[in-house]
Amino acid sequence: MAESSEVAEVLARFEELAVLEAEFEDVELEIIRKSNTLNVPLWKKRADIVAKIPHFWTLVFEQVPPELENFLQPSDNKVFEALQTVEVSRFDIDNPDGSPRSFSIKFGFSDNEYFENKELEKKFWYRVSKDGWEGHVSEPVKINWKKGKDLTEGLTDAAYKLAQSRSKLGNGLSPAASLKKQSGLPEYKTLAAKIEESTEASLSFFTWFGFVSSFRYVSAEESAEAIKDELARLEKLKRGEKPDEEEDDDEESDVDFQETEVFPQGDVCATLIAEDVWPSALRYYKAAHEADDEDLSELDVDDMMEDDSDEEVDIRGLVGKGRKASDSPPSKKRRNA
Amino acid sequence: MAESSEVAEVLARFEELAVLEAEFEDVELEIIRKSNTLNVPLWKKRADIVAKIPHFWTLVFEQVPPELENFLQPSDNKVFEALQTVEVSRFDIDNPDGSPRSFSIKFGFSDNEYFENKELEKKFWYRVSKDGWEGHVSEPVKINWKKGKDLTEGLTDAAYKLAQSRSKLGNGLSPAASLKKQSGLPEYKTLAAKIEESTEASLSFFTWFGFVSSFRYVSAEESAEAIKDELARLEKLKRGEKPDEEEDDDEESDVDFQETEVFPQGDVCATLIAEDVWPSALRYYKAAHEADDEDLSELDVDDMMEDDSDEEVDIRGLVGKGRKASDSPPSKKRRNA
Repeated sequence: MAESSEVAEVLARFEELAVLEAEFEDVELEIIRKSNTLNVPLWKKRADIVAKIPHFWTLVFEQVPPELENFLQPSDNKVFEALQTVEVSRFDIDNPDGSPRSFSIKFGFSDNEYFENKELEKKFWYRVSKDGWEGHVSEPVKINWKKGKDLTEGLTDAAYKLAQSRSKLGNGLSPAASLKKQSGLPEYKTLAAKIEESTEASLSFFTWFGFVSSFRYVSAEESAEAIKDELARLEKLKRGEKPDEEEDDDEESDVDFQETEVFPQGDVCATLIAEDVWPSALRYYKAAHEADDEDLSELDVDDMMEDDSDEEVDIRGLVGKGRKASDSPPSKKRRNA
Repeated sequence: MAESSEVAEVLARFEELAVLEAEFEDVELEIIRKSNTLNVPLWKKRADIVAKIPHFWTLVFEQVPPELENFLQPSDNKVFEALQTVEVSRFDIDNPDGSPRSFSIKFGFSDNEYFENKELEKKFWYRVSKDGWEGHVSEPVKINWKKGKDLTEGLTDAAYKLAQSRSKLGNGLSPAASLKKQSGLPEYKTLAAKIEESTEASLSFFTWFGFVSSFRYVSAEESAEAIKDELARLEKLKRGEKPDEEEDDDEESDVDFQETEVFPQGDVCATLIAEDVWPSALRYYKAAHEADDEDLSELDVDDMMEDDSDEEVDIRGLVGKGRKASDSPPSKKRRNA
């Protein structure tokens, strides 16, 4: 039968493709490392320069693309006015047990009426689960909200408390057993109930600090084991052997971790900040100055060079403006690689 | 005045930022070169393997993300069934007068009822205009449509004819003068009229082969001069000198090149193919097999390894299916870097 020999032919290719995919992945990681090495000194230089530019990051965040803007609420604007520094780093780039895909995003704030923290740092670890998922997981960050000023209505606090209790459950449990045990915690029930009653439509961006995973929490131990298993499987494939049957420790869990996830798509949001806003911050900053108002065009770099007019330009005035309801990215040029 | 000294401080930083931006750009180009060097051997290997997998690229294009899917019409489906090979290359990567951002996309087709061409190759040159725009420009590709089968209703032919006449206008004209001269060509008027009467909503993807620019055509000569001017300006800035005032050869042109552009956003579409579909083709192919239908899950790689059931799987059946009306990307994992 022509059909089934065609299928056999295709199947014979799947093993080759699995090996090839692993090679592509190695190249991608090497590129991330190389890119980081070359860019780190420039990001340092940039930080030194923009430290002297008032409201640099506030203006950048006013110009972010719509995919990210969707995660920001008008009520967040005033907090972003206190945003002074942003720093993205690949903290595990040289760690053989970590992934170059892991990153941390650190925000620095001036005194503000919302929270006490001067700095909020959120880490994202790239992990692989034993059931084949891979992606970024995080841990909730404690925000010390001032009284009556919690924009997340208790969600970040509740997420933080659950994570603390979860960490005390200990390792060695299977993912399903761990999930089951978590779901018995009082903090789990409190958070799940809080999420169910909250009106997600107006979720503050700062709820993102409570994000854990768009799948479920995957521990460093589980990820290390999953990667070891995958490498062993690939080695067998390369030698032309049949890989072992995977043990199906599929104790199915009926616990849906997402009922305690305070910020769905928090990993997508983080990736947009780390891989778009961070590397392209200068472009977004320039876009802020090229923004609609003709009378602000004096701030354009080239014009600056050409005339010495000392008209007063109120940079602070720019900051107060509402988020632009732009439905297209600010500047087309330079968006293509 | 606090305000104006703050402004002066900011202005002093703009020159530093301009120099820094150029350094970021150099790093980006180095990364593109490095990535190309490492990936080219893997892409060759992939081409060898997928040549033995029927309908590989057809299935890939059924799984592309919505941004790209928007450019594809149901009427294009049958042509995509004849798609056999795709090849993206950075043809100017080692050319000091070219840009590593330039790329070519080459499609190979089996015999089909639509056109005679076995191969359609479209090149995108990354260029800088004298008035500050930068991006990809292209030249229309001639598609030899079979009688009564032109999905673009004459648009690709008309775009090709205008480009031929444009190329005979000769160099040495200023951009504005060249635009003006073009707009006098009969081919210009014909194309502009054709576009105005066409119903853009159902524009075939193949009209993309007629794309020229989302700005205006920028010649290699203009781009070389613009880059030379910019480098000279940067050198002055680095030495702390004031750059020359830019000559304002702003003979404004009242010709809108876009009235002859057959495929708005053709550069965006090309970049999605070159930088998403091409590098991630294996992932999209796998997504095709993980597609909704449970009864097709036998094709999943891991399952294949585990059981030797020789149930018949009709791969061709997959191809015949209409484009999936998915409004979210096929597979979340691996979309984050």
